[in-house]
Amino acid sequence: MTDERTMKTTLMEIGKSAKAASAILANTPAAIKNQWLLAMADALDSSHEVILSANAEDMERGRAKGMSSAMLDRLLLTPDRIKGISDALRYVTTLEDPVGHVLSSVERPNGIKINKVSVPIGVIGFIFESRPNVTVDAAGLCLKSGNAVILRGGSEAFQSNMTLAKCISDAGIAAGMPAGAVQLIPFTDHAAVSMMLKMDSCINLIIPRGGERLIRTVVEQSTIPVIKHYKGVCHVYVDKTADFDTALKIIENGKCQRPGVCNAVETVLIHEAIAKDFVPAFAALMKEKGVELRASQDVLALADGLNSATDDDWSAEYLSLILAVKTVPSVQDAVAHINQYGSGHSDAIVAADPEALEYFLNYVDSAAVYANASTRFTDGGEFGMGAEIGISTDKLHARGPMGLQELTTYKYKIFGSGQIR
Amino acid sequence: MTDERTMKTTLMEIGKSAKAASAILANTPAAIKNQWLLAMADALDSSHEVILSANAEDMERGRAKGMSSAMLDRLLLTPDRIKGISDALRYVTTLEDPVGHVLSSVERPNGIKINKVSVPIGVIGFIFESRPNVTVDAAGLCLKSGNAVILRGGSEAFQSNMTLAKCISDAGIAAGMPAGAVQLIPFTDHAAVSMMLKMDSCINLIIPRGGERLIRTVVEQSTIPVIKHYKGVCHVYVDKTADFDTALKIIENGKCQRPGVCNAVETVLIHEAIAKDFVPAFAALMKEKGVELRASQDVLALADGLNSATDDDWSAEYLSLILAVKTVPSVQDAVAHINQYGSGHSDAIVAADPEALEYFLNYVDSAAVYANASTRFTDGGEFGMGAEIGISTDKLHARGPMGLQELTTYKYKIFGSGQIR
Repeated sequence: MTDERTMKTTLMEIGKSAKAASAILANTPAAIKNQWLLAMADALDSSHEVILSANAEDMERGRAKGMSSAMLDRLLLTPDRIKGISDALRYVTTLEDPVGHVLSSVERPNGIKINKVSVPIGVIGFIFESRPNVTVDAAGLCLKSGNAVILRGGSEAFQSNMTLAKCISDAGIAAGMPAGAVQLIPFTDHAAVSMMLKMDSCINLIIPRGGERLIRTVVEQSTIPVIKHYKGVCHVYVDKTADFDTALKIIENGKCQRPGVCNAVETVLIHEAIAKDFVPAFAALMKEKGVELRASQDVLALADGLNSATDDDWSAEYLSLILAVKTVPSVQDAVAHINQYGSGHSDAIVAADPEALEYFLNYVDSAAVYANASTRFTDGGEFGMGAEIGISTDKLHARGPMGLQELTTYKYKIFGSGQIR
Repeated sequence: MTDERTMKTTLMEIGKSAKAASAILANTPAAIKNQWLLAMADALDSSHEVILSANAEDMERGRAKGMSSAMLDRLLLTPDRIKGISDALRYVTTLEDPVGHVLSSVERPNGIKINKVSVPIGVIGFIFESRPNVTVDAAGLCLKSGNAVILRGGSEAFQSNMTLAKCISDAGIAAGMPAGAVQLIPFTDHAAVSMMLKMDSCINLIIPRGGERLIRTVVEQSTIPVIKHYKGVCHVYVDKTADFDTALKIIENGKCQRPGVCNAVETVLIHEAIAKDFVPAFAALMKEKGVELRASQDVLALADGLNSATDDDWSAEYLSLILAVKTVPSVQDAVAHINQYGSGHSDAIVAADPEALEYFLNYVDSAAVYANASTRFTDGGEFGMGAEIGISTDKLHARGPMGLQELTTYKYKIFGSGQIR
């Protein structure tokens, strides 16, 4: 525990330093930012020993605290994983610089010319849990997009995060980067997060990544704009005009390929006209893949070995091999169910009927709506953004995957010759 | 005072009704929305009597409470002003519909096609003070952009706002608009605002318009994203290469044309190399226009009748005929001053030197930066947006004037043929 005054003083220094750095970063050419990123990548490659030793401390504390093997695996760094992290930084240097693009330009009747130009957001506060690689990934994307970043990682990865942040920050500074560009909050106290969330004079955006509880706390406390997603309750709706093989393939991919991620499928809705024909094959496939089905009453009768769903199942984010199943009498009812219980993340329809497809895509109020494709594509890489810093289910500023472009805003540059109003 | 439970029940009904309406509005063609707007405009024109009578109640209460004549004038409705309000609605029907535009489209190597399409934000909570015309203006822009709106006006205009909102809502509903599209909160209690700011399950965006205190309260309490500006502390920097006539014209326009608005100039910065030549003419003009100058020490010596500035003057939003004046040794110092004391709204440089112009436009971190033009142009109409619902000094989602386009977000519509990952 650090005393509050020390913490506050340190945080304010971090904030001021980040704000000062952001003014420089906003006007740093792409080539220079890429040099800093490459210097960071090289530094990571030549610092395996110190990074692994810090990580070993975190791992030991994690084991002593009885962390699950899945959590321990998320925390673990290996030489291969560190190489993966530095290669990801190198990859970011190959992406297009999102800053300085003229997004639109208009000359008004009075002769003033108004250019809308993309600029960095400024200072980004990034709050995350467990995986230490996120320290470097987030810093790389913020820096590439001309933003300063203040990182706050989970306490379980504290030594790893501190070491990684120091390694890349030192390397960047040695290559000419301003000192406040990449900083990590050196306190594990919850109070440090609360203070950070009130620093609206020097932080422009908070991106929290983690469990729903963390994110809700951030939203409740922050006076800084937040971009977030609480959870991913994604649906596949199988229309009466669906091709069954396509539907099975998309459901299996959505549920089984990587069940622990936010774009995995949690609920399947089946048009009641085809339930009798579809459910047996569907239930057999899910059984084969080890997926537990929690079904509405009418579905239970159509196959063996299903469990009964309760109301809580319709809004559950299982993140594991469990799937809720329900019939609906129409595409309209499917959409109503999704808009009521879903999380506005990613939802798919499998259908041949163009009217059903159009209705679903227009009326489902989610960041990504799919016609005959897997919800697993909601991802910065899959969308062609190159990389992503997170996925937003908010509607403001960024919706869906957030890449480099979503880490910028714009300003208006107006060119006149003495015009007045 | 309404009891809290009644208030909460009513607010939740308003929220649910707005959310239900927003799903319909999002998919309503432009022609239909325009019909509703025209029906509203006609209804206003044929309801002068009831509107003026409600306004007379507000005026009487205002006089009894000792409201200033300026405030009373803001509150007053007249037949001409009501005609102005209905004509503004008719004008909105002539603007381009911002919904349904394909903003970008990409076909990925696996064959999925990803369309980024503009859609309404959903439900907008609009909190404002005094002027009753804002009730209708805001409703018109939200509706045109496919959003449902929940309005909360100032208590001093309560009867006027209620009557205007009922008039346009009834007319819209009679023309087929969903009932929850335009609603006004029927309570004057502060507690109603606090409740509204936590309704993140049915309100997607809060836009507060009013004094800094109101806006800070909103930001502190809201769990819903907020777009706002606290204040407008706008600058004109007169470079050593400035044309003096141009500089005087831009300063006069910025300060005197309409001193009470957020894009009016509050501080003039003068390059020290020209201060001796520039200040006398500048001070004479300001004296002629009745502008009080509050100047730094070195400026005081250059003309008669100036007052001494204190530190508070550099961040003051006077909204009246007062101007702070200071010399700076360079364009870099001008920028540093603006980024420290300004509000990120609108700032101008007057200069001939292209390097000074470029430096200023790149490094001043404001929504609108002007080379040789008046800051008074920061306005939706002047920018060619047709109309504005407010000005943002935030960096997220919208920066500067917010028109119809800024009242939309986007969703990704993905078209596949069975693709999985």
